[in-house]
Amino acid sequence: MRHLLTDNSHLGLCIRKMSAADSSWIKTVSLEPPTLQDNTADAERLISALRVTLQTDDAIQIDYGLLKKIPTALRSNDFNVRCIVLKNACQWLVLDIQGASDRRPVAGLAVDLGTTRVVLRLLDLANGQTLAESGFDNPQLTVGPDILTRIHFTESSDGLTRLNNLIITGLNRAIKRICRSTQLEAADIYTLSVAGNTTMTHLFMGLNPRWIIREPYIPAVNKPGILKADELGLQVNPAARVLTFPNIGSYFGGDLIAGILYSKIHREPDTALLVDVGTNAEVVLGNENWLIACAGAAGPALESGVTQMGMMAGPGVVDRISIDPQTREFSLHTIEDQTPRGICGSGVIDLAAQLFLSGMIDIRGKIMPAVCGKRLKDVDGLLHLVVVPADQSATGLDLTISQADLDSLIRSKAAMYTILETLTQSVGMELRDLAKFYVAGTFGSYIDPRSAVAIGMLPDLPLKTYQALGNSSLGGATLALTSAESQAEIDHIRDRITYLELNVNQDFMNRFSAAKFIPHTDRTLFPSVR
Amino acid sequence: MRHLLTDNSHLGLCIRKMSAADSSWIKTVSLEPPTLQDNTADAERLISALRVTLQTDDAIQIDYGLLKKIPTALRSNDFNVRCIVLKNACQWLVLDIQGASDRRPVAGLAVDLGTTRVVLRLLDLANGQTLAESGFDNPQLTVGPDILTRIHFTESSDGLTRLNNLIITGLNRAIKRICRSTQLEAADIYTLSVAGNTTMTHLFMGLNPRWIIREPYIPAVNKPGILKADELGLQVNPAARVLTFPNIGSYFGGDLIAGILYSKIHREPDTALLVDVGTNAEVVLGNENWLIACAGAAGPALESGVTQMGMMAGPGVVDRISIDPQTREFSLHTIEDQTPRGICGSGVIDLAAQLFLSGMIDIRGKIMPAVCGKRLKDVDGLLHLVVVPADQSATGLDLTISQADLDSLIRSKAAMYTILETLTQSVGMELRDLAKFYVAGTFGSYIDPRSAVAIGMLPDLPLKTYQALGNSSLGGATLALTSAESQAEIDHIRDRITYLELNVNQDFMNRFSAAKFIPHTDRTLFPSVR
Repeated sequence: MRHLLTDNSHLGLCIRKMSAADSSWIKTVSLEPPTLQDNTADAERLISALRVTLQTDDAIQIDYGLLKKIPTALRSNDFNVRCIVLKNACQWLVLDIQGASDRRPVAGLAVDLGTTRVVLRLLDLANGQTLAESGFDNPQLTVGPDILTRIHFTESSDGLTRLNNLIITGLNRAIKRICRSTQLEAADIYTLSVAGNTTMTHLFMGLNPRWIIREPYIPAVNKPGILKADELGLQVNPAARVLTFPNIGSYFGGDLIAGILYSKIHREPDTALLVDVGTNAEVVLGNENWLIACAGAAGPALESGVTQMGMMAGPGVVDRISIDPQTREFSLHTIEDQTPRGICGSGVIDLAAQLFLSGMIDIRGKIMPAVCGKRLKDVDGLLHLVVVPADQSATGLDLTISQADLDSLIRSKAAMYTILETLTQSVGMELRDLAKFYVAGTFGSYIDPRSAVAIGMLPDLPLKTYQALGNSSLGGATLALTSAESQAEIDHIRDRITYLELNVNQDFMNRFSAAKFIPHTDRTLFPSVR
Repeated sequence: MRHLLTDNSHLGLCIRKMSAADSSWIKTVSLEPPTLQDNTADAERLISALRVTLQTDDAIQIDYGLLKKIPTALRSNDFNVRCIVLKNACQWLVLDIQGASDRRPVAGLAVDLGTTRVVLRLLDLANGQTLAESGFDNPQLTVGPDILTRIHFTESSDGLTRLNNLIITGLNRAIKRICRSTQLEAADIYTLSVAGNTTMTHLFMGLNPRWIIREPYIPAVNKPGILKADELGLQVNPAARVLTFPNIGSYFGGDLIAGILYSKIHREPDTALLVDVGTNAEVVLGNENWLIACAGAAGPALESGVTQMGMMAGPGVVDRISIDPQTREFSLHTIEDQTPRGICGSGVIDLAAQLFLSGMIDIRGKIMPAVCGKRLKDVDGLLHLVVVPADQSATGLDLTISQADLDSLIRSKAAMYTILETLTQSVGMELRDLAKFYVAGTFGSYIDPRSAVAIGMLPDLPLKTYQALGNSSLGGATLALTSAESQAEIDHIRDRITYLELNVNQDFMNRFSAAKFIPHTDRTLFPSVR
């Protein structure tokens, strides 16, 4: 498997700044023991010392569970303790204290709460290091594969409770497992950050999602903030808190806010674009001063959902193709170099680009029979191009792409480009003005930007402009755990986003039509594509 | 039973200011229903509307339980709702919403958490009206009558849990009962305020009180703030919050802070004094700019603990005495006009004052045999003065006061006066400069200030200066429930108190010796006493 663009070094900054012992979440303090002259109570004594360390005037609140054990904990550690803290809106929260020399791990858990798959990353909060990572299929799949089915299911009796139980139970099981794999206990987890789309977030918190899918599409909450893990049914430390990423509506969820946090476009002076490529294209444009976002249907073709040979990345799946422009010989790369059995999204984009560059399809994406020659095949009256002949495939069947597949891909890539162009021009900019172009999502990691540019799906920017982010939802959830003050930054991102409702009006349709060519009707937009 | 000083009209101000429908805790808001153009989530829509009504820039947080029901609750009430709110440190909390026209009662519960007795007052938060009041003996009495015994008990296995359970169970039982008596349900109670001494407060919250009684006498917490009733085990509304009054140390608890809140001395430009008379004299002096407090042992004599006939106020107990200076005839008043069976604290103070004014005891408090004549009796070599002869008493025995009782009373009253004088002079003032003199506690309500002045226990101020506060702990707890923002005022009181450690040095002993006369060695301090 390849990661073409993996220079993520700028993303680890916050993590590396932390010292070995203390961190943003862990503060070691040494209290003056009480005397007759200074009889401040234990809790307030700790708060005073922490106030100096945290350099804050904000309220500092001690978790009730900690209040119960504070007299003994302070005295048995000679008033030298390390505190596990976090910032909740306007106040600091002290979750627990341990002896200053105690080396019991203090862990955090970042969760990418996907509709299909849930990914956990266990972190050492002392240094931000990843301790373990694991994933599991969202147990709500047993109810339905998509959000719509699940929301309808909540309208049945106990439906919401059942969906909520499924995900909470699944998480608890996975938490137990990931802790066991690292010799930790679930009670060592003090903070969790959860990034998911708006519906998944609602089901996770047990909130009624009914009005998310009904005009005018209203979530129960935009900013869930920080809740007690215990109240949510999560079996971790009893004092643990959960930061659930906010959303800006039904269609723009916490997973995308996490993506922005991870990309850091909200901190940069230069304007950058972040796109999450999938059936829906979710796009954010902005810089340290402003953020604008939109979402639109780009079509399943980009995830290879339509081709007869399309499948998710996996062993034996074609993920990279090149075609010799002279001989029109195909060079295929398969994952783990196994005999080819299908093609994934990045492979389809490579294929389309190479077919175009070698003259095998024209600027409309139409197969050129004169050029393709013996690779052509008629299946039920529809023209197919054989990518892997039956005798070389793992399935024993021809792996082909049809004219209909190509048409569908052209529509998807045109939709994607039109969305990018519309959003960028809505702020008076051109795509060529972008300083950085981040491609999020696992799928995004495998796309060769040269191919995506060649077919006109992505704009013709210098290659170094493109950067793959991988699972940016998990990345953002992880970053949220590198600072006890993340909530403020996350809320700040959310509050600054202007959401642009995409109107599929005449102007949009005109742009779309112009983009339905390879790479585009306006060839001056793609000077690098010859 | 008499309340000599009952002009408490100034204390009800906050309550009367509230309108019939809304109050400090209840805010009716009308939301703009969501549209495609305004798709803010339900929670944030409610927060925006509340922000206008509350006129605040502070964070507004919605209780997690409310988040779960908000979509349905808003829509079933056409987006017109009344919100139950409170202010917690830097943020507002929304506990629940009901339909705007809903008239379901919203109740609060003020609790005076006494070592011996617990008193509850149920309030309608819409108008501050008292709905019911009740009391019960502190079930921890089964473990021990005093704080010391109970703290030692917490050191046995499960001791703290058992003491905590006793009080929580007792409260839950009493809550059920008081609600039933008013046709309310426990779930109608949304806020509680609890005022008690430092140890009782710790036992109530299940906090380890071990270091309260060990040098240097450190509580676990000074400002418990606002906690969830549910976390404390209280069976009221699941969203209900509990404001527990803060303390400034082992010896100056939340009951006294509540007393200050109730007296309002912290709001007045003129300096006033507040004293809680009992075995311990707890004294606060101050005005809107400063507060200074101290506590000292005044001796049990003031609560009639030492006289052989002393007892708590109750039917047949002598609470008022006058002696004809000419004939030296005694006129006794008993509670409920029953046959006398004992004497309470206020009766003892009356008795001493009358004995002195009629020349039956001298300025040292010594019985004058020549004057007392046939009322004298020798019991085991100790001089006794018969107050009620055996044939007129309910017990069939003489009710007497001995010379030893009188000596003890003199020491107690001298200690009280010395404490008052020391505190007042510590800020460069004289007792005669006091604008108001508040006497707190049930016992304080029954004292005739004329008698207390006559024996030199209280300073010789114009009678209108004295004001009895009754159960000021319960009064303060009640006031705390008249405003959703009380916590700030209470914390402000606590933070402003300077605690004066009483040093029993030569200067103190000199003052004490001077006060051990009736009314005082310096007669110019008591011009009204002839």
